[in-house]
Amino acid sequence: MMKNNAEKANIYDCVVIGAGHAGCEAALCCARLGTKTLVLATSLDTVAFLACNPSIGGTAKGQIVKEIDALGGQMGINADSSLIQLRMLNRGKGAAVHSPRAQVDKYKYHISMKRVLEGTNGLTLRQGEAVNIERVHVAEFCRNENDEKNIDELKANGETLNGFEITTAVGIKYYARAVIVACGVYLNPKIIIGKYTRNVGPNGFAGALCLTSSLEKLGLSMRRFKTGTPARINGRSINFAVLEKQAQDENMPPFSFMNDHAKPDSASCYTTYSSDETKRIILENKHLAPIYTGEVEGTGPRYCPSIEDKVVRFADKERHQIFLEPEGLDNNEWYVQGVSSSMPADVQHEIYSSIIGLERVEIMRDAYAIEYDCIDPTQLYPTLEYKNAEGLFFAGQINGTSGYEEAAGQGLVAGINAVRRIKGKELITLSRDESYIGVLIDDITSKGTNEPYRMMTGRAEHRLVLRQDNADMRLTEIGYKIGVVDSVRHMRYLQKAAEIFEIKNRLKATARYSDAVSFLGGFGEPCPPNGISYENMLKRNTITIFHIRDSFNILNGFSLRALETAENDIKYDGYIKQQQLQIEQAKKLEGRLLPDNIDYSLIQGLRLEARQKLSQIRPLNLGQASRISGVSPSDITVLIIWLSLNK
Amino acid sequence: MMKNNAEKANIYDCVVIGAGHAGCEAALCCARLGTKTLVLATSLDTVAFLACNPSIGGTAKGQIVKEIDALGGQMGINADSSLIQLRMLNRGKGAAVHSPRAQVDKYKYHISMKRVLEGTNGLTLRQGEAVNIERVHVAEFCRNENDEKNIDELKANGETLNGFEITTAVGIKYYARAVIVACGVYLNPKIIIGKYTRNVGPNGFAGALCLTSSLEKLGLSMRRFKTGTPARINGRSINFAVLEKQAQDENMPPFSFMNDHAKPDSASCYTTYSSDETKRIILENKHLAPIYTGEVEGTGPRYCPSIEDKVVRFADKERHQIFLEPEGLDNNEWYVQGVSSSMPADVQHEIYSSIIGLERVEIMRDAYAIEYDCIDPTQLYPTLEYKNAEGLFFAGQINGTSGYEEAAGQGLVAGINAVRRIKGKELITLSRDESYIGVLIDDITSKGTNEPYRMMTGRAEHRLVLRQDNADMRLTEIGYKIGVVDSVRHMRYLQKAAEIFEIKNRLKATARYSDAVSFLGGFGEPCPPNGISYENMLKRNTITIFHIRDSFNILNGFSLRALETAENDIKYDGYIKQQQLQIEQAKKLEGRLLPDNIDYSLIQGLRLEARQKLSQIRPLNLGQASRISGVSPSDITVLIIWLSLNK
Repeated sequence: MMKNNAEKANIYDCVVIGAGHAGCEAALCCARLGTKTLVLATSLDTVAFLACNPSIGGTAKGQIVKEIDALGGQMGINADSSLIQLRMLNRGKGAAVHSPRAQVDKYKYHISMKRVLEGTNGLTLRQGEAVNIERVHVAEFCRNENDEKNIDELKANGETLNGFEITTAVGIKYYARAVIVACGVYLNPKIIIGKYTRNVGPNGFAGALCLTSSLEKLGLSMRRFKTGTPARINGRSINFAVLEKQAQDENMPPFSFMNDHAKPDSASCYTTYSSDETKRIILENKHLAPIYTGEVEGTGPRYCPSIEDKVVRFADKERHQIFLEPEGLDNNEWYVQGVSSSMPADVQHEIYSSIIGLERVEIMRDAYAIEYDCIDPTQLYPTLEYKNAEGLFFAGQINGTSGYEEAAGQGLVAGINAVRRIKGKELITLSRDESYIGVLIDDITSKGTNEPYRMMTGRAEHRLVLRQDNADMRLTEIGYKIGVVDSVRHMRYLQKAAEIFEIKNRLKATARYSDAVSFLGGFGEPCPPNGISYENMLKRNTITIFHIRDSFNILNGFSLRALETAENDIKYDGYIKQQQLQIEQAKKLEGRLLPDNIDYSLIQGLRLEARQKLSQIRPLNLGQASRISGVSPSDITVLIIWLSLNK
Repeated sequence: MMKNNAEKANIYDCVVIGAGHAGCEAALCCARLGTKTLVLATSLDTVAFLACNPSIGGTAKGQIVKEIDALGGQMGINADSSLIQLRMLNRGKGAAVHSPRAQVDKYKYHISMKRVLEGTNGLTLRQGEAVNIERVHVAEFCRNENDEKNIDELKANGETLNGFEITTAVGIKYYARAVIVACGVYLNPKIIIGKYTRNVGPNGFAGALCLTSSLEKLGLSMRRFKTGTPARINGRSINFAVLEKQAQDENMPPFSFMNDHAKPDSASCYTTYSSDETKRIILENKHLAPIYTGEVEGTGPRYCPSIEDKVVRFADKERHQIFLEPEGLDNNEWYVQGVSSSMPADVQHEIYSSIIGLERVEIMRDAYAIEYDCIDPTQLYPTLEYKNAEGLFFAGQINGTSGYEEAAGQGLVAGINAVRRIKGKELITLSRDESYIGVLIDDITSKGTNEPYRMMTGRAEHRLVLRQDNADMRLTEIGYKIGVVDSVRHMRYLQKAAEIFEIKNRLKATARYSDAVSFLGGFGEPCPPNGISYENMLKRNTITIFHIRDSFNILNGFSLRALETAENDIKYDGYIKQQQLQIEQAKKLEGRLLPDNIDYSLIQGLRLEARQKLSQIRPLNLGQASRISGVSPSDITVLIIWLSLNK
């Protein structure tokens, strides 16, 4: 049958299911790369909704935001525009783990991202719940009248289905060459507060109750994960006088490399602690905790436990730190970071009242746990394409990760690859040595995850290279070649790169001996008899590039950002060289591609477990194979030999 | 059993169920009158949510907003603070029907009302779904240790239960002396789009699925009503070039009597029309319309029909006017007033595309119908207290009305009376001759309503008196006596009253003859030979008070508002006097109270229908009895005689 006009209007290049942090980046990326894109959201109020912390960034996550920004994504720009406060975490530690973290206005974050989607050419944002994804022939919806026969031929020939029909709950059918599933935690969600449960999504938004079975029909195996969020409390019930205030860090560059200055601090966060009483209440009511009674079936994130879990698991810990964060500037709801819970509501009230400064707490929204369906991400290639359906991509929490930033990073990669799939270009992967996003996707697609996966700096073996300050140096050129970075951003990157080159050049010079002696003396450091270059001064622990700039007349006029990156490159030069060596070796393995049609059961010498894991995960290359748990170095050696014999 | 500490914290004077337009006014009123008040909202995102038009006011509704404001309510102030545009409807007609209408920013309206609730002393705003309301003895939760025996005695003596226990879905129990049920359309809601239905509330918010049966247990009889809302479309898909723009009216006073100046126009609305094509599409798809297929069971509002209903019912009408209204300043969703629909989503797309200027429409949210449970309002006294349970009040759409303003007006009255019930004071009613709110509540409680009740100027027999400009003159003194108007507002009212008095006084003077001749000549009007007072000049049709102000040196320095009211009082003096006479007569009837224990079946001379209706509705006085449909003037005469004999 020919499609009628209404149906023709429903033909897109790409359909993105979900408009959370993954869906927004994916959709913007697709539209900006020139493909006609539809975003379906169960509710338009969920667009870029911050269902948990009103904050963007943090340890390792801040790096991801910078990477997304370096690749032309929206998250950093959006965080800057809705900024309440900006801080640099881990400043006391090495530059590798410095992580920017923004407190943002929850509503402004949502609405400004939505405004960008509403206005982007080629992008249609629409409320709609996808209930079914079906593989069809592209020729069925993209064709002229002569195609009728053609389709029958295709079908008769058993040609691969290369397009999709997406049906929504209200019965509209959309057609697309590629689909990106980015539905977050909205698949069969269940909120849990003590004995109370309800099948709704975060914040009570309606869940998507049909899509899971459609995904299962496409061959995906699903699993059940769980996460949680703390209560929101009325700010007037907080006794701020007894709490410690956290102000914005000064002189911090904003999130986006496109912005020069961060907004000034508009509201502060506060820190406090749980008390002995908190511990007592939780232990006394442990029998009512759904995570112990069996009511919660999903697997929760080990690194983001509920308060009852923390108290029970770390029974010897006297108190737990808690952060109070404003949810926005136009309302008085406060987020109580560190006190997520699925305890009964009345017990929650007792727990919160026992926190120092919250003695008279007014809970406005109860804390809750939420269970949801997600997929096993080892079913995806590291391009985020589903191994059994060309053109079908998955990104975000549906892949078993947690966190806005982790989701957004995946969304960007899925978006880039969906477009490349549509345009018939080779798909791309980001490698572990050039980005946290690469580490994340490589981890989940090769090793999988048994709990909501959260990025941590410890997961990146090359973290001295993967710094927040140099994300643009690592990725903007790549993004420019892909097409997601526009010329304005590219020019800013080139400028900064030129600055860094010039700074390093100038620092190579030897300082005047007398100046050096007096400068180093100020730090209680001796000057070598043959003099010293600025570069070598900088390698000393206590000396920063700003000390040098302010004492010698060689670094005037350079941007803070360029100075910061040059400094880190020089200070960590030795370690970085070592890491580069490892990277080179790893790259060689990555370069050895494993054909998709290898029958691992026939390769002699592989251990049984390795055969099974390799057959199941089908790694793209030796590097990925080497990171699969259950594949040993000797198995890799077997594969290297097999590859050289079977070229 | 003694209540433990947690339970003691849950004791309030008044619990308001629902935080929509009725709930907000009710709760603010209770708290401001000094009672400890809890507001429960199924979601805090529903607080003062504008589920339909992003606008406040309009014909007859604008008058209600002014009345709410005159009584110290929040709606007018909130509309002013979130204003996009302000217009005066019906300016071409008499002052009686002049009605202010504000276009507001939907999100700002919600969040600024929420901020007020969050910050009001004595008011606790909390997310929570009420699932059960149970009558209990106040002594059970408000007592000392010696009360234990007391309660048993009360129970044994069959004393009236005078308090309430409210249970929420998460299992918390709250106790209160009074309860105001203001849950809007959230009772067992069902959204309908073609064959698609889902049991959620407006905008997909979670509905309240348990409260109906609790209300039924309390003896309330429920009914099923229906309303609907149009699609929201992306502004960039509107061809504004072919549409007519509606700008803000100049020199309009803002909604609230407390504000002097309205915000400037920040965005315009546009008007357009349906086309022949619209008609054709609807008639062709009539068999798919849920209102005709039987899918919609609830009764809809006759005065706010869906587009399919309009086209089918008014088949001879060539086209229907449509208004395009921005939903806010920070997003690009537009509301399409006049095109509410429950047609299937694909048919909706065709309908909207057929509207002039919407040929390339991008629908962002589909139009939908919504069904919900509400009560028969004749079960309430005109104080909005339930006849069978002292302290239980109902306000807003739960009473079978429609409209934000109608809801808010009821909320205020319920709030005032809940407090008066708690404090042991006599409850109040607003009369038909002093307010539209009085007309509304009298109509629904005495006559009931068979469809969502909407206020219209035609419902008010005293509408020359019930003008938008004089709401403060009518009500602020009453509000001050009740305690809901503070001294600042009262002072403003007194000032304006003094101005009006002085203006009228000055207008009584006779103008200098030569000045009068020349002034009237300018309007082509003769001057009486004996001269003329300014007042009599003003009574001429074409002459306004501003003409007089600008031509004679007697009205300088008076406020616009005082001049407007003085002018209307004078211009309509004759009619007003006539209305006053009717009001006096009606008041006499209102003053004749009907004892609550009358057995109408025993009153000889009453017709059967009158006996039944009077027994069922139990009017408070003869006036209310006279407005019950089925009670004739001769029945009233019988009652007058019976009353005089049975004093």
